[in-house]
Amino acid sequence: MGIDPGTANFGFGVVRVEGSHLAPLDGGVIETASTLSPEKRLEAIHRDLAELIDWHRPTALATEEVFFGTNADSAMQVGQAVGVALLSAAQAGIDCFSYTPQAIKKAVCGSGGADKKQVQRMVATLLGLNEVPKPDHAADALAVAICHAGTTSFGDAAEAAAGAGSKLRVAS
Amino acid sequence: MGIDPGTANFGFGVVRVEGSHLAPLDGGVIETASTLSPEKRLEAIHRDLAELIDWHRPTALATEEVFFGTNADSAMQVGQAVGVALLSAAQAGIDCFSYTPQAIKKAVCGSGGADKKQVQRMVATLLGLNEVPKPDHAADALAVAICHAGTTSFGDAAEAAAGAGSKLRVAS
Repeated sequence: MGIDPGTANFGFGVVRVEGSHLAPLDGGVIETASTLSPEKRLEAIHRDLAELIDWHRPTALATEEVFFGTNADSAMQVGQAVGVALLSAAQAGIDCFSYTPQAIKKAVCGSGGADKKQVQRMVATLLGLNEVPKPDHAADALAVAICHAGTTSFGDAAEAAAGAGSKLRVAS
Repeated sequence: MGIDPGTANFGFGVVRVEGSHLAPLDGGVIETASTLSPEKRLEAIHRDLAELIDWHRPTALATEEVFFGTNADSAMQVGQAVGVALLSAAQAGIDCFSYTPQAIKKAVCGSGGADKKQVQRMVATLLGLNEVPKPDHAADALAVAICHAGTTSFGDAAEAAAGAGSKLRVAS
């Protein structure tokens, strides 16, 4: 399961590795109303995500290491959603992994410099879909899932999962 | 209940308002081992905090609006702990509030420019403690709780709770 975390729109995507083939299982966005308090939004995300994890029983939860530059406010907001996602995974006994945007692009497109649209088109191609998954947050989450899946037919993804990808770390 | 959130050391403090008097009920730090994965640390925080909330049944959860400047990495780390804390509160049906460092200092010391040591000494005085609560994270969390408590005998705290304090908001 890949995720594209946010408090208003929380993208998720689930892929199954079948030999050298990737199959899309699920993808979408957990949306929370802006009229809800932040704590109620996080509660809704936790509830929906726990349900998805319980339904799909993924072997891992993968997320993108987003670079926030100097935008600490955004990092704090997204961090809250990431925290709830990691908690959901831990409560289900699932390990978490993170990948840099470059590793994800390289795994999906073969080039770390691919643009967002190229990544989304390749996500559709790799998953045998006729159209790019919508909305964008779902497509982005599927890209992270593909990166982690790293099947042997996708050398770059396998490499990313084994090398560039890392278990999430928190400075103590 | 006031909190001073972090992944390695998560401070908490609980005070009871008895008329014009503040009584310390609890305070301490949830520590998580650096050998644990981030998701396991968050799970431990969630478990311990949920237990504390269930035990004390606080009327509100209050936290400090920490200013991270340009340190987005730190904001992301602390945000994860904040997210889990807000979730714990929401799951218990408790509203969450946040206060600026200045509002907390003003509520506790009467001046937004008070230094950390002054705040800690005043926390001890206001709570009728012979010594400054240890460790620092617990004292800081108690200061947030005192700020929110805002009893009538502490005009500044009451003002902070009514004015400077705000329900937590997340940009959508």
